[in-house]
Amino acid sequence: MVDVQAILDGQRLALSRLLSAIENQTPEGQQALADLFPHTGRAHLIGVTGAPGTGKSSLVNQLALHYRKATDPKKVAVVAVDPSSPFTGGAVLGDRIRMTALSGDAGVFIRSMATRGSLGGLGRATAGMVQAFDAAGFEIILIETVGAGQSEVDIARLAHTTLVVEAPGLGDEIQAIKAGILEIADILVVNKSDRPGVESTERALRNMLQLAHPVARVFQHHGEPMAVAAPAQTEETALWIPPIQRTVAADGQGVPELLEHIAAHRAHLEATGELAQRERARLAAELDARLHEALLQRWQTGQQADAYEKTLDQVLARALSPQDAVRQLVNGKKG
Amino acid sequence: MVDVQAILDGQRLALSRLLSAIENQTPEGQQALADLFPHTGRAHLIGVTGAPGTGKSSLVNQLALHYRKATDPKKVAVVAVDPSSPFTGGAVLGDRIRMTALSGDAGVFIRSMATRGSLGGLGRATAGMVQAFDAAGFEIILIETVGAGQSEVDIARLAHTTLVVEAPGLGDEIQAIKAGILEIADILVVNKSDRPGVESTERALRNMLQLAHPVARVFQHHGEPMAVAAPAQTEETALWIPPIQRTVAADGQGVPELLEHIAAHRAHLEATGELAQRERARLAAELDARLHEALLQRWQTGQQADAYEKTLDQVLARALSPQDAVRQLVNGKKG
Repeated sequence: MVDVQAILDGQRLALSRLLSAIENQTPEGQQALADLFPHTGRAHLIGVTGAPGTGKSSLVNQLALHYRKATDPKKVAVVAVDPSSPFTGGAVLGDRIRMTALSGDAGVFIRSMATRGSLGGLGRATAGMVQAFDAAGFEIILIETVGAGQSEVDIARLAHTTLVVEAPGLGDEIQAIKAGILEIADILVVNKSDRPGVESTERALRNMLQLAHPVARVFQHHGEPMAVAAPAQTEETALWIPPIQRTVAADGQGVPELLEHIAAHRAHLEATGELAQRERARLAAELDARLHEALLQRWQTGQQADAYEKTLDQVLARALSPQDAVRQLVNGKKG
Repeated sequence: MVDVQAILDGQRLALSRLLSAIENQTPEGQQALADLFPHTGRAHLIGVTGAPGTGKSSLVNQLALHYRKATDPKKVAVVAVDPSSPFTGGAVLGDRIRMTALSGDAGVFIRSMATRGSLGGLGRATAGMVQAFDAAGFEIILIETVGAGQSEVDIARLAHTTLVVEAPGLGDEIQAIKAGILEIADILVVNKSDRPGVESTERALRNMLQLAHPVARVFQHHGEPMAVAAPAQTEETALWIPPIQRTVAADGQGVPELLEHIAAHRAHLEATGELAQRERARLAAELDARLHEALLQRWQTGQQADAYEKTLDQVLARALSPQDAVRQLVNGKKG
């Protein structure tokens, strides 16, 4: 059983049990999430994403530490969507355990989610964990993912502020990825900035920002020069130009400045009303996913048990196209 | 208009127009796909995936060349799901154009799909393009993607044979990813194998195969030693142990051997009946996606125009949990 009151009271063991129930997608977990839902909506959700080797995990640890060390310390949760299995026990997980042990801090909760065998349900599980942390009173929730592609877009939908992390010298193909994820970046981080090649990485990012970012296109449209490197935002407009921040996660260089950018982005979201828009989009996405599932369940109960399989057989035999098959299934016409 | 007969006749311009219609998700494209569907199901679909910097694109080019140079040349299509935009014009795209110009070969068709702004519809567009190439008589279809995560799993669902590409010396975090994608690999490729560190990369892969692969677990269950490095398969069983093949895509080293592994995997799929199972799973996934959409459309037409928005407002105000909201919407109860 999940003890909802204990979670609201901040008991770590109860929270930990709920997180497992969410990851295993149990009915108890879903019920507890529904009960906790009125207590959500207070946390700042920060997505941290980027290619392998950029040092995202170390950066996430540094962000957590700095939020704890602040004059107004925040409770910090980390959801690490981590494709490494418990078997491998790689450096990333090791660092995290060490960091936790070092701090022994009740204001920090770190949860790694192994994605082995369940990548499909990952988006929903992550969203559920974020809701659980939010209800439990964690004010900053860092959501870390590895890789490029759909998972990045899902994070962007989930997070209020998305950090895209790069590092110098990760090979040419890295460059090709950026154009795709630049569009979801609210803040660009060049980590490992004590390494050679930091200038060219930053220059490449700046050039791609000019080409790829919608804001940049607006500026170009008016024929004006861009100043994307400047962290200062044009306060009189609703435009947010992603700043580029150098960091060295190993020793914390640039992390205080990164926190300032995050705070500035939060203020921008609130001032422009975009925070409310993002919240609406986020909850609409969750509602849509659940609606899809409920409609499918309702449809299935009204079907003859073998209608679907028979139709699939016809599609497999190329006697029916998928388009016509769906028309038959939904409208109840015989094939 | 899409000219279906011209596509069946092998006219490149007609095919090219269809591919654009699919990428733009036009109704004409969907109708053409439905018309072409009876002509699909003949191609061998090969997924090629791996982290940035592994040289996947060069390897895909080499595979295409070798299939063309074979004593029994095959028509080859490449669908490159490429997050690089036309703006960046990176090395990857450049190579591909050069390669195409070099060959000027009517038996090869290469299509890059930019994912900018449309990552969500990517899976369906890719599936549609593969069907178009299949109907147009391309016998080998190489599907290349960048990144780790959901996109890899989607490819594995789409492809008959999935190659996971690694390379030496890509940093520690790469190791963490492998455990997740190893499970979808039919063949492991260590590309850039002329580089230092190839032995340790191969050793790490082999160790993780032993821990992560279902087949390996079966073997361990019986307490027997594993021989995962051996490309020869146990023909009397239905087990496929992913072979590990070293390649140097820059000069084609190891590519002939890789083609043999692919052919062996195809033969294995046919001999064990797994090919039919994968085809069924693939078309079932497509049917499910279309069914979801059709059910949602039908549900929407039966709704009051503002019922959804009103419910979403209640969720936003935390007056209603997403779970209860969906129950109301689907069962038509008032909130």
